Amino acid sequence: MEPYRVRVIYGDTDQMGVVYYANYLRFFEGARGHFIRGLGLSYREIESRGILLPVLEASVQYLKSAKYEDVLEVHLSETHTRVKIRFEYKVHREQDGAVIALGHTVHVCVGPELRPTRAPEWLLQKLQGGRLELRSSATAGQEGKRNG
Amino acid sequence: MEPYRVRVIYGDTDQMGVVYYANYLRFFEGARGHFIRGLGLSYREIESRGILLPVLEASVQYLKSAKYEDVLEVHLSETHTRVKIRFEYKVHREQDGAVIALGHTVHVCVGPELRPTRAPEWLLQKLQGGRLELRSSATAGQEGKRNG
Amino acid sequence: MEPYRVRVIYGDTDQMGVVYYANYLRFFEGARGHFIRGLGLSYREIESRGILLPVLEASVQYLKSAKYEDVLEVHLSETHTRVKIRFEYKVHREQDGAVIALGHTVHVCVGPELRPTRAPEWLLQKLQGGRLELRSSATAGQEGKRNG
Amino acid sequence: MEPYRVRVIYGDTDQMGVVYYANYLRFFEGARGHFIRGLGLSYREIESRGILLPVLEASVQYLKSAKYEDVLEVHLSETHTRVKIRFEYKVHREQDGAVIALGHTVHVCVGPELRPTRAPEWLLQKLQGGRLELRSSATAGQEGKRNG
Repeated sequence: MEPYRVRVIYGDTDQMGVVYYANYLRFFEGARGHFIRGLGLSYREIESRGILLPVLEASVQYLKSAKYEDVLEVHLSETHTRVKIRFEYKVHREQDGAVIALGHTVHVCVGPELRPTRAPEWLLQKLQGGRLELRSSATAGQEGKRNG
Repeated sequence: MEPYRVRVIYGDTDQMGVVYYANYLRFFEGARGHFIRGLGLSYREIESRGILLPVLEASVQYLKSAKYEDVLEVHLSETHTRVKIRFEYKVHREQDGAVIALGHTVHVCVGPELRPTRAPEWLLQKLQGGRLELRSSATAGQEGKRNG
Repeated sequence: MEPYRVRVIYGDTDQMGVVYYANYLRFFEGARGHFIRGLGLSYREIESRGILLPVLEASVQYLKSAKYEDVLEVHLSETHTRVKIRFEYKVHREQDGAVIALGHTVHVCVGPELRPTRAPEWLLQKLQGGRLELRSSATAGQEGKRNG
Repeated sequence: MEPYRVRVIYGDTDQMGVVYYANYLRFFEGARGHFIRGLGLSYREIESRGILLPVLEASVQYLKSAKYEDVLEVHLSETHTRVKIRFEYKVHREQDGAVIALGHTVHVCVGPELRPTRAPEWLLQKLQGGRLELRSSATAGQEGKRNG
């Protein structure tokens, strides 16, 4: 799966001349949506089936500054139990590959009226498929290196 | 009615060192909510009665820059027909009274499923009350000056 | 020139279930940066040469709602004098081509210390090039239709 | 010191009908600025003396949803070493006192060109004063309860 890419706009920066710290959570969200589309789903569709995935916790580590017009790539990995989904994020700058930020979010599966619920089978199967694909593309990457 | 006040945070600024241009529409919205609360209503309550006021058009004229930690005062005036409400905004910097920005928004009254509808009587009456109060406080202000 | 594309994220929406009205000014800004890159420049580079283009006025007309995960295309046209640049924007939803919003911004050319200045020759030449290209691609489009 | 208060605007919410998760980092920033003003400083002044406090890490735990027009109170506590400052945040809803979110940020003291530096004496003294005041007002609160 291609990483999520986002180009920093002026409105993302602050007067320190770098991306404002809250905006990384926007980039993470963009990456989650991208990941879910990559599973052949969409978060809009998940919602229309009555499942929401509100966030329980989030963290960011800021390693380097991102600047206006930088293109950021957000790599994501996912693990889950029956009721929670955890995403880990790694933000690279496309130009030089520098790692800009790391982070994670944990989401809980809720049904109508925001009551926690077990993730439905169709969602778990899609997520399981995504993990397999992530793993095999990671393996492919290693093999590529080995062979290269 | 006291003007709406908002203090500029770091996240409102951009790398030019001034408030990012889109954020004035956030300040305008804050001022609308403040105005409606001043009528003895709340926009949350209006929505719970099945009326929404989505925006049809908005404009901003940027006269001076606002900076981090500036306190901005948003003065608002309101006019309406049976289906549309128009707000005019004037943003001052509290410290020196400088006019920072002007703007307007036009809103249409919609019912469930976002269909345009005539504003209900209870809303028009409240708005009418607000205009009277704005007018009388303007008059009071003039008298204050005359007497001062 | 390809139009600027942006996918609506959750953070762009509000509780009405549509894109929050201020965010169109972010999309417009994204489209300006894209347009300037298309001229073989970048706004970052313009700034590094000591020229800033702060906004004097902005407007938006909201015609239809954009929703979460919609892909929006922002088409832009540009005109300028020696000291001001005007952009007109048209936002389409990619899926069905619906026109979502129209708008404009006017920018003034300023030098160091934010004093208005005449646009330098290198900037005007690039802008002139962009207009020619916009015009020829519009013509190409019409011919395409005529022939189709 | 009074807690920082912020009223949720429409633009803070998302289509789930609650405050978008990234915006808590904006509220935390507002609370930091408020705390620093309470020390008799301002972050603008700190910057003008050549000291910046960029964020190294941030986290949020989301316990309850905040909604449009809720007034949120952000309580903050601060600890520091010679080079880092750590803030802990607790967000309450004013109406019912419910704890909405917890979080923290860690900041590093940097000088010109964003090089890490030891916090200057004048900053440490102010921060030390703030901690004393926080402690004594906490004590006062306990006494108040004991006597009540």
